[in-house]
Amino acid sequence: MSEAASQAVQSTIRELVDANHILFDQGVVDGFGHVSARHPGRPDRFLLARSMAPALVTERDVLEFDSEGAPVEKGGPAAYLERFIHSEIYRKRPDVHAVVHSHSPSVVPFGVVAAAKLRPMFHMCGFLGGATPVFEIRDFAGDGSDLLISSKQLGAALAQSLGQGPAVLMRGHGSTVVGSNLRQAVFRAVYTEVGARLQTEAMRLGPVTYLTEEETIATTNTIGTQIDRSWLLWLKAAERRSMVS
Amino acid sequence: MSEAASQAVQSTIRELVDANHILFDQGVVDGFGHVSARHPGRPDRFLLARSMAPALVTERDVLEFDSEGAPVEKGGPAAYLERFIHSEIYRKRPDVHAVVHSHSPSVVPFGVVAAAKLRPMFHMCGFLGGATPVFEIRDFAGDGSDLLISSKQLGAALAQSLGQGPAVLMRGHGSTVVGSNLRQAVFRAVYTEVGARLQTEAMRLGPVTYLTEEETIATTNTIGTQIDRSWLLWLKAAERRSMVS
Amino acid sequence: MSEAASQAVQSTIRELVDANHILFDQGVVDGFGHVSARHPGRPDRFLLARSMAPALVTERDVLEFDSEGAPVEKGGPAAYLERFIHSEIYRKRPDVHAVVHSHSPSVVPFGVVAAAKLRPMFHMCGFLGGATPVFEIRDFAGDGSDLLISSKQLGAALAQSLGQGPAVLMRGHGSTVVGSNLRQAVFRAVYTEVGARLQTEAMRLGPVTYLTEEETIATTNTIGTQIDRSWLLWLKAAERRSMVS
Amino acid sequence: MSEAASQAVQSTIRELVDANHILFDQGVVDGFGHVSARHPGRPDRFLLARSMAPALVTERDVLEFDSEGAPVEKGGPAAYLERFIHSEIYRKRPDVHAVVHSHSPSVVPFGVVAAAKLRPMFHMCGFLGGATPVFEIRDFAGDGSDLLISSKQLGAALAQSLGQGPAVLMRGHGSTVVGSNLRQAVFRAVYTEVGARLQTEAMRLGPVTYLTEEETIATTNTIGTQIDRSWLLWLKAAERRSMVS
Repeated sequence: MSEAASQAVQSTIRELVDANHILFDQGVVDGFGHVSARHPGRPDRFLLARSMAPALVTERDVLEFDSEGAPVEKGGPAAYLERFIHSEIYRKRPDVHAVVHSHSPSVVPFGVVAAAKLRPMFHMCGFLGGATPVFEIRDFAGDGSDLLISSKQLGAALAQSLGQGPAVLMRGHGSTVVGSNLRQAVFRAVYTEVGARLQTEAMRLGPVTYLTEEETIATTNTIGTQIDRSWLLWLKAAERRSMVS
Repeated sequence: MSEAASQAVQSTIRELVDANHILFDQGVVDGFGHVSARHPGRPDRFLLARSMAPALVTERDVLEFDSEGAPVEKGGPAAYLERFIHSEIYRKRPDVHAVVHSHSPSVVPFGVVAAAKLRPMFHMCGFLGGATPVFEIRDFAGDGSDLLISSKQLGAALAQSLGQGPAVLMRGHGSTVVGSNLRQAVFRAVYTEVGARLQTEAMRLGPVTYLTEEETIATTNTIGTQIDRSWLLWLKAAERRSMVS
Repeated sequence: MSEAASQAVQSTIRELVDANHILFDQGVVDGFGHVSARHPGRPDRFLLARSMAPALVTERDVLEFDSEGAPVEKGGPAAYLERFIHSEIYRKRPDVHAVVHSHSPSVVPFGVVAAAKLRPMFHMCGFLGGATPVFEIRDFAGDGSDLLISSKQLGAALAQSLGQGPAVLMRGHGSTVVGSNLRQAVFRAVYTEVGARLQTEAMRLGPVTYLTEEETIATTNTIGTQIDRSWLLWLKAAERRSMVS
Repeated sequence: MSEAASQAVQSTIRELVDANHILFDQGVVDGFGHVSARHPGRPDRFLLARSMAPALVTERDVLEFDSEGAPVEKGGPAAYLERFIHSEIYRKRPDVHAVVHSHSPSVVPFGVVAAAKLRPMFHMCGFLGGATPVFEIRDFAGDGSDLLISSKQLGAALAQSLGQGPAVLMRGHGSTVVGSNLRQAVFRAVYTEVGARLQTEAMRLGPVTYLTEEETIATTNTIGTQIDRSWLLWLKAAERRSMVS
């Protein structure tokens, strides 16, 4: 690997560590949940921490995985049981370069109530587009699964449910959000949580005015240019409350 | 500019920086939202940070804007897309010397539920007067806007919707609160959030007794004399959890 | 004053300062609200901070008031507008040696919704007894007051509404809680807030089983012996997050 | 006692202190609540702190109790009034090696609303199995008790209500959660609170899809292998915000 390529990997790993800490500090993940980045030099691979709490991840904990969701280096530390969420989404979605899986608390209820659809009503969440699809694992693994995406087959089914969208809810479990880069995926994961909270509160007040389809497109385009503003703040906040320094 | 005038500007800039940090620390703004002050010596101008997260603003980041919402110094750093909220309110409201725009979370739901009116039921929020108006950007920019007040025309429409009041909700977006000075505007922004939260909770318990019109006037007059009490506390709190020191 | 008497006053002042900080740290008061103690040597007087945010109170800020709610030392700093809450309750209730007035957020909604009664359903809140009375200032000051207890007459009316109970809600304003000593009053103020929050959540799930009258008496007796356990914790927590050190 | 046995006790005591701090830091206990561990060498005994706030417990505060809930060492500090929760569960459930009693706030409402059943709808809470039973102390102590499990008889009744399950709600009071070791009991106590919060929110959105019985078994088995991931994070977090160092 050239020096430039090696530096790109190092840079991605550093940003991935920051993403782990930000997602914890912003309340998107707790001891569980994970975030990955597509490998900058080998698009069939991705980078993901070993199985551990995101808040505690350091550069040393980041592993490289192949397109089957297997660690490239054999005999290493335990990997997340659900790494297939990442491998199958990267396979199916060349546009995706970062994936966040979480149990972020305001989103979970939308996955278990068929009558309630997660939909953007707040301009910061325009990226959600229309109603977010819900992945029902029972359709693929029957009524007795552990709800985890613990195989290539389940990962592929989840990726199918995600389709070309930014997010998919997982019934009884959580959600997965994707982006064209780490900062975008993190931004979306945080604002999916924020938007779900706001929508929940609004629905209790009465019928809600949601964004029109055109509004979701226009807000996505404009807000998409402002992501670094949040990233810099969140990074500072995560560093102030760091669990690893 | 005389030395006294220069000191007045410096003093306003310092207070504006504090206002930025307080609004973040009190949960009114996150990475987004902004606060401005009318220029103490040139009432056709105002002071506002460059485009950045309020928590990270320092004195160096404060820019001067003219009555068209253009930075006085050309070629400087990027300005907030929505600076026209400020320029048009200052134009229309000579009594206003400070403006806060935010997405404060308890307020957003009242902007998207036509059936629910934000109204004061708590003496600390008497300043809200009657039901707070809701600005529907679709009436001015159609069904496909990005919801932002990104032009002089939209700023003027928002200022029209604000009227002579203290606050205006913005559908699918947030709210804007004004004051005759920075401390009052910040106080109102914080207590608009607090009042919205309390009203939301009360509405779920049953029919709510709101303040009478006379009560809103009397409470505004009395509480208006007590604003520094909160400001000093909030400033201390913001300094303790500062993101910039 | 004898040395022992002087030490008793100093000790009460120190505990009063701690009470101020605890009430802030536990979220009962923000910039507003106040706590007082009956003077240990002169039962017709009481100790209360000058008009300021409770979190910032130090021993130097505590003033002595007479039974009319007037500062004993003339020409001192501004006093709380609502000191008559304290003076009139001390006058009417010889058993009361500490009073907390706050806008604690979960309690306010019960003051503005006639259909919802604050009642204990949680053993830690047995001291509330039956439904907490609501003081409607309109009955005494008409429809145009500033809702504040800013006179001896309104203080007496509030004390009348409190009766022999531990707490009274104030419509559109907040609540006042009393105790036979500072630690008990603080304990009750914190658990009135906690209980209101729990009751609000429970009421949304369905019809609530409240404590029986006998249960309120038995829990009050038992829990009353455990107050120091909370006080020591809260004091430690307040010191860790102190706004004055 | 052999050196190995003595070390096992010391190790359990250290972990018990950590458990106390974690339960406070995660919001499961406040000044009240307690956690115990079965004695590693004498299964008829258990270890539990003296009567005090869990956040402040140190190794010196841990006492040894016999199977009647009496401190082995006489004349020591005051013991928790409700130590019989622990003694009677250890007697009835040889599989249980740790017990957490708390008033964790999202769980309390499910104990006072007969119409609402706490049931797992989130894979992290599969361990709850079906609907959690509610212990009604009135059935054993009449309508005028102080709601506390302050005798062997009431402890036995509570243990009977717990049955072979992981948790039991206590009407108007709180809940008790058990585990086969300290980490599991703490994990279950935290996620019972998390699950109750999520279920409450979901129920307000509409009819909820709960886990099937097979799903509760499968998720319990899988998630049960991941408990240390949370423990290590929570311990770090508790140390960062420690009340005793």
